[in-house]
Amino acid sequence: MSLLQDLQWRHAVKAYDPEKKVSKENIDKIIEAARLAPTSSGLQPFKLLIIENQEIKDKLSEKALNPECMKECSHVIVFAAWDRYTAERIDKVYDLTTDERGLPRGRFSSYTDKLKSIYLEQPAEENHAHTARQTYIALGLALAQAAELKVDSTPVEGFDSAFVDEVLELEKLGLKSVSLMYVGYADADRDWLGSMKKVRVPKEEFVVEFK
Amino acid sequence: MSLLQDLQWRHAVKAYDPEKKVSKENIDKIIEAARLAPTSSGLQPFKLLIIENQEIKDKLSEKALNPECMKECSHVIVFAAWDRYTAERIDKVYDLTTDERGLPRGRFSSYTDKLKSIYLEQPAEENHAHTARQTYIALGLALAQAAELKVDSTPVEGFDSAFVDEVLELEKLGLKSVSLMYVGYADADRDWLGSMKKVRVPKEEFVVEFK
Repeated sequence: MSLLQDLQWRHAVKAYDPEKKVSKENIDKIIEAARLAPTSSGLQPFKLLIIENQEIKDKLSEKALNPECMKECSHVIVFAAWDRYTAERIDKVYDLTTDERGLPRGRFSSYTDKLKSIYLEQPAEENHAHTARQTYIALGLALAQAAELKVDSTPVEGFDSAFVDEVLELEKLGLKSVSLMYVGYADADRDWLGSMKKVRVPKEEFVVEFK
Repeated sequence: MSLLQDLQWRHAVKAYDPEKKVSKENIDKIIEAARLAPTSSGLQPFKLLIIENQEIKDKLSEKALNPECMKECSHVIVFAAWDRYTAERIDKVYDLTTDERGLPRGRFSSYTDKLKSIYLEQPAEENHAHTARQTYIALGLALAQAAELKVDSTPVEGFDSAFVDEVLELEKLGLKSVSLMYVGYADADRDWLGSMKKVRVPKEEFVVEFK
């Protein structure tokens, strides 16, 4: 199957079969797609929280817009972005990069100095607005990877991020939740969207060409 | 090739061969991956501007961080998000959805009323912060689609969005540019990143598991 076929196949599942679990192998591939996502300056300013624990899913569902869907899916993946950029966080990524490439540490210091001069002058909220955007690249790729594996999924933005941050103690990790992705296998009888036609804006309206 | 292999294959190309153009067929597939991207409430609050015209690429490159890369790539794709949500824009998407699914218009009015009560109360900048995030899902999928086709690409955030908006007259379209994607074929001799190892944060640091 091609990526386009996978994207045609997927939809935002509205009800999961609580008896069907996604294998560790498939979860690992979904994580890997997100880990390989490109990010601004390669900083990867986010983490994935993988929630398989039923009690935690139940707790999180107390403030979910779609509590049954969250409870019954196999895993909830939380995309959580850095609350701010710091010099240490930037240096850590670039030290890894130089170490892995066999280059001297500091090889990219003129670039990282520039990044620091921009980001460290901004308020934390502006930093987070930027780190949050990066998570969406990874979310898109994780959804595509699930589709390739014929694992059902639901991207979720409508949730109480402060509550999720509190339950998962994300402040300690310097993170704030941005989006959720439920994964599992749809319950076809209750997944009302499954049988409906996928609708997208026609290409002529979606694109403006400058030839 | 699998998605993971495609993501391993791709990198942010730093120099393109100006003689090599991407075919219309491949551009159309990249557009299609972006068009099929999921978005919040299915609103698809953005458009793609496809710039093949050399004069416009040259003009845009005047304020680019990487002007040669922009000039020499085959096409520049601009991801431009709605400047704000409006009742008309929301209704238009849902009218298309009901029409395409053979449902009566207004079938989802309790949902669209809720969307309007949230978005139309927000300042335009807050709306745009939300529409902009959605473009990154599509950017990720467009990059993956290019990789599947073995088309090289470069995701670009470092540019003067006000200048791009002005040159392309995006205000008239109710859009603001968010990111760029260069596509083409790398000039291997000048693309210094091409021979370097891809580096990502190790999985153990990227993921927190709640079992």
